[in-house]
Amino acid sequence: MSSSFNGNIKFTIFGQSHSSAIGVTIEGLPSGFEPDMSELARFMQRRAPGRNEYSTPRAEADAPEFVSGIFDGKLCGAPLTAIIKNTNTRSKDYSELKYKPRPGHADFTADERYHGAQDFTGGGHFSGRLTAPLCIVGGLCLQLLKAEGISVISHIAELGGISDRGELCSTDGKNFPVIDDDCGEKMKRAVLDAKADGDSVGGVIECAVLGCPAGIGDPMFGGMENRISALVFGIPAVKGIEFGAGFNAARLRGSQNNDSFAVENGKIITKTNNCGGILGGITTGMPIVFRAAIKPTPSIAAEQDTVDLRTMENAKLTVRGRHDPCIVPRAVPCIEAAAAIAVYDALLEKRKETT
Amino acid sequence: MSSSFNGNIKFTIFGQSHSSAIGVTIEGLPSGFEPDMSELARFMQRRAPGRNEYSTPRAEADAPEFVSGIFDGKLCGAPLTAIIKNTNTRSKDYSELKYKPRPGHADFTADERYHGAQDFTGGGHFSGRLTAPLCIVGGLCLQLLKAEGISVISHIAELGGISDRGELCSTDGKNFPVIDDDCGEKMKRAVLDAKADGDSVGGVIECAVLGCPAGIGDPMFGGMENRISALVFGIPAVKGIEFGAGFNAARLRGSQNNDSFAVENGKIITKTNNCGGILGGITTGMPIVFRAAIKPTPSIAAEQDTVDLRTMENAKLTVRGRHDPCIVPRAVPCIEAAAAIAVYDALLEKRKETT
Amino acid sequence: MSSSFNGNIKFTIFGQSHSSAIGVTIEGLPSGFEPDMSELARFMQRRAPGRNEYSTPRAEADAPEFVSGIFDGKLCGAPLTAIIKNTNTRSKDYSELKYKPRPGHADFTADERYHGAQDFTGGGHFSGRLTAPLCIVGGLCLQLLKAEGISVISHIAELGGISDRGELCSTDGKNFPVIDDDCGEKMKRAVLDAKADGDSVGGVIECAVLGCPAGIGDPMFGGMENRISALVFGIPAVKGIEFGAGFNAARLRGSQNNDSFAVENGKIITKTNNCGGILGGITTGMPIVFRAAIKPTPSIAAEQDTVDLRTMENAKLTVRGRHDPCIVPRAVPCIEAAAAIAVYDALLEKRKETT
Amino acid sequence: MSSSFNGNIKFTIFGQSHSSAIGVTIEGLPSGFEPDMSELARFMQRRAPGRNEYSTPRAEADAPEFVSGIFDGKLCGAPLTAIIKNTNTRSKDYSELKYKPRPGHADFTADERYHGAQDFTGGGHFSGRLTAPLCIVGGLCLQLLKAEGISVISHIAELGGISDRGELCSTDGKNFPVIDDDCGEKMKRAVLDAKADGDSVGGVIECAVLGCPAGIGDPMFGGMENRISALVFGIPAVKGIEFGAGFNAARLRGSQNNDSFAVENGKIITKTNNCGGILGGITTGMPIVFRAAIKPTPSIAAEQDTVDLRTMENAKLTVRGRHDPCIVPRAVPCIEAAAAIAVYDALLEKRKETT
Repeated sequence: MSSSFNGNIKFTIFGQSHSSAIGVTIEGLPSGFEPDMSELARFMQRRAPGRNEYSTPRAEADAPEFVSGIFDGKLCGAPLTAIIKNTNTRSKDYSELKYKPRPGHADFTADERYHGAQDFTGGGHFSGRLTAPLCIVGGLCLQLLKAEGISVISHIAELGGISDRGELCSTDGKNFPVIDDDCGEKMKRAVLDAKADGDSVGGVIECAVLGCPAGIGDPMFGGMENRISALVFGIPAVKGIEFGAGFNAARLRGSQNNDSFAVENGKIITKTNNCGGILGGITTGMPIVFRAAIKPTPSIAAEQDTVDLRTMENAKLTVRGRHDPCIVPRAVPCIEAAAAIAVYDALLEKRKETT
Repeated sequence: MSSSFNGNIKFTIFGQSHSSAIGVTIEGLPSGFEPDMSELARFMQRRAPGRNEYSTPRAEADAPEFVSGIFDGKLCGAPLTAIIKNTNTRSKDYSELKYKPRPGHADFTADERYHGAQDFTGGGHFSGRLTAPLCIVGGLCLQLLKAEGISVISHIAELGGISDRGELCSTDGKNFPVIDDDCGEKMKRAVLDAKADGDSVGGVIECAVLGCPAGIGDPMFGGMENRISALVFGIPAVKGIEFGAGFNAARLRGSQNNDSFAVENGKIITKTNNCGGILGGITTGMPIVFRAAIKPTPSIAAEQDTVDLRTMENAKLTVRGRHDPCIVPRAVPCIEAAAAIAVYDALLEKRKETT
Repeated sequence: MSSSFNGNIKFTIFGQSHSSAIGVTIEGLPSGFEPDMSELARFMQRRAPGRNEYSTPRAEADAPEFVSGIFDGKLCGAPLTAIIKNTNTRSKDYSELKYKPRPGHADFTADERYHGAQDFTGGGHFSGRLTAPLCIVGGLCLQLLKAEGISVISHIAELGGISDRGELCSTDGKNFPVIDDDCGEKMKRAVLDAKADGDSVGGVIECAVLGCPAGIGDPMFGGMENRISALVFGIPAVKGIEFGAGFNAARLRGSQNNDSFAVENGKIITKTNNCGGILGGITTGMPIVFRAAIKPTPSIAAEQDTVDLRTMENAKLTVRGRHDPCIVPRAVPCIEAAAAIAVYDALLEKRKETT
Repeated sequence: MSSSFNGNIKFTIFGQSHSSAIGVTIEGLPSGFEPDMSELARFMQRRAPGRNEYSTPRAEADAPEFVSGIFDGKLCGAPLTAIIKNTNTRSKDYSELKYKPRPGHADFTADERYHGAQDFTGGGHFSGRLTAPLCIVGGLCLQLLKAEGISVISHIAELGGISDRGELCSTDGKNFPVIDDDCGEKMKRAVLDAKADGDSVGGVIECAVLGCPAGIGDPMFGGMENRISALVFGIPAVKGIEFGAGFNAARLRGSQNNDSFAVENGKIITKTNNCGGILGGITTGMPIVFRAAIKPTPSIAAEQDTVDLRTMENAKLTVRGRHDPCIVPRAVPCIEAAAAIAVYDALLEKRKETT
């Protein structure tokens, strides 16, 4: 539980926003696998802060250093530990927050959970910065999946009230990950408008896993929905997830929602994909499709109502520090990472039962 | 993974729709606890089939028999196994389904997962009937939570395009679990309309956990969202989940979505609850609120397109057997069960770290 | 932890000596596998009580009934639950034991663990009877291993001061599982002597896994020693385990204890096997050899010193009921079961990492 | 499994003998706990190499650096990662070993396990050096246990054929951890004799956990024997473990082996402790006593028989590099660490079930 994922792959994400380093310890990736480190760096870069006007000016190289588990460029079977040094921290920004929890952040709940011992600087272990180690694991899984013909694509489906349009395709390589760049322009404007107001916006990310064979996943608590959501809700700010037609399926009749089977080129497909490629928790062989709702960044410029934990009285707070007016673009690779881990882990689950 | 939940409480749900019995084996509930068996029976009854015209005519007593783990009326510390005999099975209804997978069901994916060895009668292990054992675990957790002042309430928030109205309150005891009975009447009509058309409808269930203290839950993969969704997606037909403002939060600005803190009667509260009682995965002390999307029952009367797995050709299928035109009312206690297990398990997690 | 084993195979053993049934719920065995039920019954029979003068007169059929997980004679992928009804219980024998814990039994420690709520009749969940479900799991794993050319053999290496002699071979099929039947006769006499004195004897069981390929097992906590001992200590009365030369290795010099490698028929072997077929936790391809120490049955006829938990005063106790003067012969298949589970589970672990 | 321990405390040990660092990532230790870092350093020092003529001349500072999880000197609730840099590595010593596995080492089995991708330098992940991170976890648990009145003591019970004498007491602070220093002198001579011969010796370590309350531990696979052995076999070179009278219990009659209960100063004790403080897997409140057999260091000076993995022919090998003629003294704190982790983890297990 907690900061550990404990499936066929096991990993623990460690570090705080302002500790000397953040990182991840991973077990269960296949020995002999030779990661493409420049491809991993490129993937990490999609999440990295400070790249443009839509994200926090905090610039971190975010280059993982592997201190163990790699020998001669290959995974050697021993646990992999990757570390990212925290270089550009400004802890003094946060001193007031010890007693005045920021609305929408985990300051208050962490204080309750850890009885005041939590690292409150920069959000501590709850910082969005901790998605960097998740992207290390996910980036490696993406490479492993690619070797099996499986890819993960995603885009910003909705942001600031604007919806993306067009057929789902990879947005990797785009500065702003949308299918329709005109929609993207409108979304960017919504972000900049919010920024100008000292405010923030959220959005919805849609993700698809392509090429996954039928028969992956398990019943009940091992379903692909459970597996994917167990990881996706590990990304801060995700407040909802839906698969296929999702909440809209709840508004359809069975005759509309059911996906008919058909044979196409000797392969069984479904004519529609309202189930999001998952029936009974198990893949159909069609794309696994899901959408995740990302709440607006809670750090905003306006003065907000909070409490003073020392005096137990109402108080006012103005959040300082460097923040993203919208974290949705940077969350896109995180969602892909989460999906990749979930799918790769489920593949291993099936593999062990197959003679 | 799979049919086992493996937290501080551990349980495995076993059985198939037409095996000699279904049931559950549970470890980790507190020794000395004396379950109220009539209260449990009453809870199970809310999920039981065959009670009215909205549900399947398959009548099962659904009375759990505890074959182990109880001594002198109390949990004795040893694993608890409860069994529900399958008495009213009609396997011959299903013989055609071996080769013609039903759209919307797990027939095809189970065949792929288990290479043809799956029990295809009545949906096998994928049947909604397997939520009965989940309700045994959940019913016991509800009693344990009650002893700590925590309760779980829910209602049908939406069904067949009709939304429920009014302030969230318990609907336990109602024949049709809605807040506003007028809305309920309209929903029932939508179900009967669908039934008359040989069709089915889905819906959305809203659930709240009341009285849960602040500071429960863990960061990242141990967050309350992760914990609850890991269980809720174990209920067949759930295709989406959202917490607090959920997908709507993605459409708000930070200044609208942030929940201000305030002191009320010496206790810290949030003035709104867009976060659904969860920040950073940890409870705020406000109600934990979530909504689950339930797809329409895939078993419908109309002839459907499918494939014949023997010939790999397109085929037609008319599903026979007894089915619910809408499983949403019966899913309500299942959702409560899932929420209760998640919250009780998270309470244990915190307990062990507290001196 | 506790009554659940949670590896690639997962199972929970449930039941008490005098509950309505005992049994096991298993997940992770391969779908499509067709157990040989008569072979399983034969294996169970080797452990069953009441077969001769060396064991308890309590006669139980010990025939497992599979209530789920099997369809058309094959494992269908869903959890397997097997139940053995408790038919021949005599609970009144045990009433005094509620307050007077038997020396050498778990009565006192269970009372402390469960605060008086434990099922104290017949040893409750701590009864040796609970090894029957372990033998169900183990019996299935033995069949799965056999299909991969792996077998498990064992014998009573020592009993009542008498050591068995000869080269390790299967003793399956023998009424008294020793290599040298003359030694066996002497051992039987030692058991009958103890029985005549109202006393009991313990012994040492030696077990070997043959045909296991090199490269199975994992470093540190996943070593074959850890895996095997984690299961073997689950058998009541086991108080020690050693691998290969074991405690004797501690008395050798490195030059004596090291096993030289050599090539034999194109395969790498070790000329000796002091390491018990395990180096660094991983199999060498030579037989995995271990010995388990079984303490003498604590139930003896003589009056013993104990305490009265009500008055917290010293007290006397004479244990009544039906007991084995020596459980070592019946523990032999249990040890084989434990070894089979450990090895099969480790095979699955490697399988999932292999492309 | 593998290099992760996954109980209520979770940790993964990472690193190889010659990777840039070794270390450990830990989850589940209590927030607010303030480790005594100088006490931890002192404990680590007992295991550190290069301190005297009995151990390897490889000198490593072995000072752990905590890169996360600590804030203001206290555990902050987030995962703890400690790193020890590898500074004094001499990889060139090991080049021949890639194709000529050393007898008694994991070279061959790791090659089989990881298909040639393993880090073979200095034993890689299988090096005894990896017990340093285990001592970090154990050292912290020892401090946590101390706060609950529980201590762990141990001594070399046997080395090179010489047995220690006297009543079990702490040997912490002694340069050579034995009860009777005269015995210690003889043991040291045995080590130096072996060293002079280019050979090595093994030994037996006896360990006791004092002050542990009755009622800790769980039945079957959660018994204290299982829990302790699961960790102790994680220490390289351990080939056997026995609890209380252990293998000797197998030679006693029940009347001799049973520990009578008695009331002493209002507390229930056992008059003897043949069960090693454990009945049915659960603590009696008496000292938990066990012994672990340590095989002689496999690295010896003499030329040995091995194979050449390239040619699959027999070969000769002379092991170079720096090695301990006897690792038993350095293994003493590792055994204490393993015991401390097992007991602390079991305490947490009980805590969560207690209201």
